[in-house]
Amino acid sequence: MRMSKLIGERTKTTPSDAVIKSHKLLLRAGFIKLVANGIWTLAPPAQRISEKIKNIIREEMDAIEGQECLFPVVMPRELWEESGRYSDIKDEMVRLKDRNNRDLVLGMTHEEAAVHFVRDSVKSYNQLPFMIYQIQTKFRDEARSRGGLIRVREFTMKDAYSFHETQSCLEEYYARVYEAYNRIFKRIGLKNFIVVQSDSGMMGGSIAHEYMELTDIGEDSIVLCSNCDYKANMEVAECVKEKPQETKMLGLKEVYTGNAKEIKEVVDFFGDITQKDMLKAVVYNIKGDVEKNIVCFIRGDLEINESKLKVVTNANIVPASLNDSNLIAGNIGPVGLKASEKLEIIYDQSVEGLLNVVVGANKEGYHIANACYGRDFMPTKIYDISKVKDGDKCIRCGSKLYVKKGIEIGNIFQLGTKYTKSMGMTVLNNEGKEITPIMGCYGIGVGRAIAAVAEEYADEKGLLWPKEIAPWLVYICAIRYDNENVMMKSEELYDILTREGIDVLLDDRIASAGFKFADCDLMGIPVRIVISPRSLEKGMVEIQSRDGVLKEEIDFYKCIELIKTYKAN
Amino acid sequence: MRMSKLIGERTKTTPSDAVIKSHKLLLRAGFIKLVANGIWTLAPPAQRISEKIKNIIREEMDAIEGQECLFPVVMPRELWEESGRYSDIKDEMVRLKDRNNRDLVLGMTHEEAAVHFVRDSVKSYNQLPFMIYQIQTKFRDEARSRGGLIRVREFTMKDAYSFHETQSCLEEYYARVYEAYNRIFKRIGLKNFIVVQSDSGMMGGSIAHEYMELTDIGEDSIVLCSNCDYKANMEVAECVKEKPQETKMLGLKEVYTGNAKEIKEVVDFFGDITQKDMLKAVVYNIKGDVEKNIVCFIRGDLEINESKLKVVTNANIVPASLNDSNLIAGNIGPVGLKASEKLEIIYDQSVEGLLNVVVGANKEGYHIANACYGRDFMPTKIYDISKVKDGDKCIRCGSKLYVKKGIEIGNIFQLGTKYTKSMGMTVLNNEGKEITPIMGCYGIGVGRAIAAVAEEYADEKGLLWPKEIAPWLVYICAIRYDNENVMMKSEELYDILTREGIDVLLDDRIASAGFKFADCDLMGIPVRIVISPRSLEKGMVEIQSRDGVLKEEIDFYKCIELIKTYKAN
Repeated sequence: MRMSKLIGERTKTTPSDAVIKSHKLLLRAGFIKLVANGIWTLAPPAQRISEKIKNIIREEMDAIEGQECLFPVVMPRELWEESGRYSDIKDEMVRLKDRNNRDLVLGMTHEEAAVHFVRDSVKSYNQLPFMIYQIQTKFRDEARSRGGLIRVREFTMKDAYSFHETQSCLEEYYARVYEAYNRIFKRIGLKNFIVVQSDSGMMGGSIAHEYMELTDIGEDSIVLCSNCDYKANMEVAECVKEKPQETKMLGLKEVYTGNAKEIKEVVDFFGDITQKDMLKAVVYNIKGDVEKNIVCFIRGDLEINESKLKVVTNANIVPASLNDSNLIAGNIGPVGLKASEKLEIIYDQSVEGLLNVVVGANKEGYHIANACYGRDFMPTKIYDISKVKDGDKCIRCGSKLYVKKGIEIGNIFQLGTKYTKSMGMTVLNNEGKEITPIMGCYGIGVGRAIAAVAEEYADEKGLLWPKEIAPWLVYICAIRYDNENVMMKSEELYDILTREGIDVLLDDRIASAGFKFADCDLMGIPVRIVISPRSLEKGMVEIQSRDGVLKEEIDFYKCIELIKTYKAN
Repeated sequence: MRMSKLIGERTKTTPSDAVIKSHKLLLRAGFIKLVANGIWTLAPPAQRISEKIKNIIREEMDAIEGQECLFPVVMPRELWEESGRYSDIKDEMVRLKDRNNRDLVLGMTHEEAAVHFVRDSVKSYNQLPFMIYQIQTKFRDEARSRGGLIRVREFTMKDAYSFHETQSCLEEYYARVYEAYNRIFKRIGLKNFIVVQSDSGMMGGSIAHEYMELTDIGEDSIVLCSNCDYKANMEVAECVKEKPQETKMLGLKEVYTGNAKEIKEVVDFFGDITQKDMLKAVVYNIKGDVEKNIVCFIRGDLEINESKLKVVTNANIVPASLNDSNLIAGNIGPVGLKASEKLEIIYDQSVEGLLNVVVGANKEGYHIANACYGRDFMPTKIYDISKVKDGDKCIRCGSKLYVKKGIEIGNIFQLGTKYTKSMGMTVLNNEGKEITPIMGCYGIGVGRAIAAVAEEYADEKGLLWPKEIAPWLVYICAIRYDNENVMMKSEELYDILTREGIDVLLDDRIASAGFKFADCDLMGIPVRIVISPRSLEKGMVEIQSRDGVLKEEIDFYKCIELIKTYKAN
């Protein structure tokens, strides 16, 4: 490819709405262009990276006996009704109508399509296990797309689906995918990723893992143990629950606390208590059902983990507005509060055994002091619905936990029979009995992977691509391309390297050395070869790699071998 | 790949709704599965063929300096409003809304996206010419999807867009694409294709060509000259217009013709005339505007070419219902008929000079005899709006034309400035003056190409793939796979060939030879190697190719070289 023809504008200025590194640099280097909110065009360099990542994914999926298919982007409503997701998934799924007024959806994932595809032809246990996958465009109507390719609405995704006779067969295959994913992310160059337990969310199923690139710009919180191997997404992370100190129960006391509503205000009001000495009440609705409230009580210093709460309630909960209820914001407490058809009460495990705590009095402007678990309130529904925080103790080894930020680059799920059961897929086992296959599903977002690599590698000069996915491995900087010798030698090197199967970008523009170096660095091409009138006089070229491995003046023809060696290692 | 695990059901019975060869066989061989009307899942073998075709396309596009990008499937309404196509294209385009009620469309082609992508970064004539392309999923809401992969709603398409400073530069590049397309279709194995002039339809622009696979199941009509090189899609095909014989004008005569309304009925009524002695009237509306009628007069033996009429009227015309007009169906004639705001009158060139013809009297039950061009009716709008028919004379050489059926497998358009102008793209020329780049666009449907190859190659046994795109080149038929020697040798050969980079399908099922041969033939694998206990006793295998080139018993190890040679030639 010639720089004189390469489409995409490279700029020095950073677009004002871009705040994270990969977003800024992918824009500045002309790799991506925004078409609409969360919808991008990939310019040639980004498309080249994308294809290289797709090929790595393909190789690793094929190596674990994956069979590549292609499911449709547009699917009929009926298919998604079979699984129940047509109504379960809300605004994230785009619905549309065709010319005959039939309802269609844009695929977000393809469990339904996968089951539809195989349920008629796979009839016997000896066709199991198998895995099918595709690399296809998906659309999710994210409420808040952001960060360039980090969170988008339209994206290219590899999604894979495996089918098994038994849970142990699924687990065995799941372990193979786990390792294949590690190989994929290592091959594309990522070093700062970890695998964590996660919530299976809208996919259904139980055991799930996420591949997380650790980065400060991450939108996910990951809990890690300072001692053992424990790692989990905040959504599902657990910690040792502190037992409250034993103490003498004191008498209940109603206290006028006026406008003190927030935990911090009430603590200040009392003066002699800490947040741990209070119960906090947080109220939710089930989305679309504003009639019913769910009140959650949790120790005052902790936060509700809404992901855990969703699992516990098995519902799409949202923070409630209290306008239409009898609950008094800032004064809600468990003493005397009765569950009803319109009110569900859930306690976090942190509440267990708490004595002499301050709670809301369910009366405008009042709190109650010295409320005691067991005496004044007795939870019937008590679950782990709290967030782990820095310094909590590891549930495995008791050591300190800490919280890091990350972005999800891949996920694997043990789906169970959610889709095969609802969609009526059965096979005959070796006794001729109908059984329902157990599924796993496995996703990688290609664009997200590009962004993750950009985040990890970019430096103050610009992007920097690992050689296995670099759009071009070599950038030939022809200094004074209008010099006949430079032009001839640049073109010769360009031809030789291209014939050797090396991806080369030739800067054939009439421009200054500094201008060309800046573009090369901004675009993140791993190896730069400088051909100038001065070096050619000695029959030499300058070669330099961004990773510092190469940096020398070398004979023109020897540089070819050097690059081949560099590429291979 | 192992047949025991390959997903996709092979059946002996032909689905009743499949009428054409490729549709039947792709279904029977388990290559495709219907998800909804015109929407398919590609099973692994079809996906493999698709990837091979995509790679051939990529190589040829890159060879003419194409730069691969990726435009989005989902685009904002505003982008399509810039070009005017948001309103110009009707039901074929699917419109949808996102969670914020913003209008989006599913891309049918990507001229808008291409211009949007480059208009900010391409600013100077010396960045021209260039070509960008993508291979991406598209959706067109076809009213009548049919024939398996022949006419679908969702499909994978390679679409390319070139940008030029001058028309001559476009023409030069267009010629290169023309040749690249010939190479692509030859490489995927097609032999029965031709290139014809065509209508540029909803793309806009003037000069256009279609690549047509000649086949009886085609839905397009192609006009070919029996002598010279003239070839054109029926939509734009022209022929020599016969001059009417000179004769004496007779007196106008109103005749009561009662219920004789159709041309044939009126000819029968008069008895002494032929269809050529009549004028036929055909009425259209502009779609969405039922108020206005367009009456077309044409010689009675000819048919209106609606594509030409659309170009002439520059409108989306549809056959009219006459309920709301003063026109009398079956009795419409030019004598005394006045054009108005609600009535446009257009004549085909065949009407020119006609004397003493029978025409409608614009009066229920009456016709007029002896109407004469120039005396009784004098066209102001006269165009070529007729269809060429078998036996018409070539406009180039005067020889006989004939009409064949074909399916479009690719198209190339000289777009002109329709999109760059409407979307405000300009570059500075070498005098520093703003000019509007001229575009070309170039499409190939990947699924359609698969179907075309299937149509051309399939025989009574099943599909038959040319080796460059075959999903697998070799099918190892292990006869008695439960025999230890057979299993060992089959697996050995499978491993060796796979390592040699040859795509192999190993039939490792416990099944009869006939069953395996039938599957191999149905799936269209080019080379079959039979490994049986009997042949192995002699250290031999049987090798046979569907094209008849290979057919021998050969030493086990020698067959590897033979296959490598076969593949390379």
